[in-house]
Amino acid sequence: MSRNVLDNCNPVSWVNGEPASLVSINDRGLAYGDGLFETIRVQAGMPTLFDLHCKRLCSGAAVLRIPFDLEGFKREVGEFLQAQKLPEGVLKAIVTRGSGGRGYNPVGCENPRRILSFHPLPAYKGSPGLSGIRLHECKTRMGDHAFAGLKHLNRLENVMARSEWQGSDCLEGLLLGLDDRLVEGTMSNLFMVSGSTLLTPDLGRAGVNGVCREFIQEHAQGWGLKVETGDYSLEDLAGAEEVFVCNSVNGIWPVIACGDLNWSVGSVTCTVRDRVQEVLNA
Amino acid sequence: MSRNVLDNCNPVSWVNGEPASLVSINDRGLAYGDGLFETIRVQAGMPTLFDLHCKRLCSGAAVLRIPFDLEGFKREVGEFLQAQKLPEGVLKAIVTRGSGGRGYNPVGCENPRRILSFHPLPAYKGSPGLSGIRLHECKTRMGDHAFAGLKHLNRLENVMARSEWQGSDCLEGLLLGLDDRLVEGTMSNLFMVSGSTLLTPDLGRAGVNGVCREFIQEHAQGWGLKVETGDYSLEDLAGAEEVFVCNSVNGIWPVIACGDLNWSVGSVTCTVRDRVQEVLNA
Repeated sequence: MSRNVLDNCNPVSWVNGEPASLVSINDRGLAYGDGLFETIRVQAGMPTLFDLHCKRLCSGAAVLRIPFDLEGFKREVGEFLQAQKLPEGVLKAIVTRGSGGRGYNPVGCENPRRILSFHPLPAYKGSPGLSGIRLHECKTRMGDHAFAGLKHLNRLENVMARSEWQGSDCLEGLLLGLDDRLVEGTMSNLFMVSGSTLLTPDLGRAGVNGVCREFIQEHAQGWGLKVETGDYSLEDLAGAEEVFVCNSVNGIWPVIACGDLNWSVGSVTCTVRDRVQEVLNA
Repeated sequence: MSRNVLDNCNPVSWVNGEPASLVSINDRGLAYGDGLFETIRVQAGMPTLFDLHCKRLCSGAAVLRIPFDLEGFKREVGEFLQAQKLPEGVLKAIVTRGSGGRGYNPVGCENPRRILSFHPLPAYKGSPGLSGIRLHECKTRMGDHAFAGLKHLNRLENVMARSEWQGSDCLEGLLLGLDDRLVEGTMSNLFMVSGSTLLTPDLGRAGVNGVCREFIQEHAQGWGLKVETGDYSLEDLAGAEEVFVCNSVNGIWPVIACGDLNWSVGSVTCTVRDRVQEVLNA
């Protein structure tokens, strides 16, 4: 295999259950972004929030009509993690529609391809979960999509939004919709605090239905909190008592600044952060 | 290499200038649809409408800030086609941002990956360019996108729209926007005829700026025609004197039906079809 086809820094990876770091150029994930992915925090050798990741993968596969064997996937993830023998890190799972001919028609693509890879936990200076982060306000807008909510492989807007800043001054970017409403972070979901209510943008038109967001929605009541979804503006953000972003790898990051706006790391955010951390560090 | 990583029916292909049919699982095209593609008709061993394909690829790469060496690409395409020794077919060229680490941030991805593959010309029963085609009216809607117009690898909507029908009764599907305006076909652009004016949907919010559409816009005046772009509805379609779709592989297909609507293969459509055919069969 020629050098330029390979990479210098391949993670440990499996393709369809076997060690491999290459896929066919006919893969529909490459051709059209025709597939889904999950990014799962691994702790003590086990995938965290795994049921929610599996649930999202299944519902995404159903929408895209990709035949997906959940039990086989769970078994494969278990075997893969056992083979890694690494206690913590990030498991990335891609499920594409598999190989196909030229052209959009997916007919005949009956063998989805599973790609598992293991990566180190991302390293950040300081403790962003404790001290909070600054948000870059992205110029790239998140469009309105027919398949909003799904964690599919069509992520060009996230890429271009994330390319807008470098360095560690901002650890996340705020994505607005085409109509300037709040949508999400480039790799996280957004929450605002109003009393004991958590406000988070509705994802019916744009954004990824994050697993950590889902976990918060499921458990908020038990923490004495309520979650409301809706369309919110930058004015709503300015008026928020507390702001945080969340994902299933980093947990909760309090937001302390976005442009001219400033917030403190508040008590509601800390409550949610600690509850989520219990699960991610299990 | 294990069997399930490979395909049974790989086309002849090069990756970064060397024969290959595999790419790294770290390719950003696979991970995020972070790249562009062109589908080019090859006639007498030469790429047709090649300048327009190159122009679109360059402008797409500029928007996505993918460093792209046009002269190197042209040279490589020439060498690839010479190596194929096949007089006609379809050249598919994918340019991705190359390999990268986990996460959306494209920083450090300075080596785009070029994937060239050669495919047979698509075969259709009868002569759709002469007798015309029926359009399936797709339920899948084309969203409003930040990177509309570009032929990028985020094509899930096209895939899902194209999956809505099988069989040869309809050869193309009509895609509407979220607000029900006309956008394009799943793999073609749409034109309506009103007198000597060609009306084609504006692609500022959604759709692919097709090379054949561009060719028509550039040359219409010389054929005694005018092109107008705008937002059009199904009512406009119903009122059109003639309708056709176009792409750079199949040329012009007159549209004779869409749902309850019917049109004849008209003289303006035939003029445009014949002019385009001269270039595609050159």
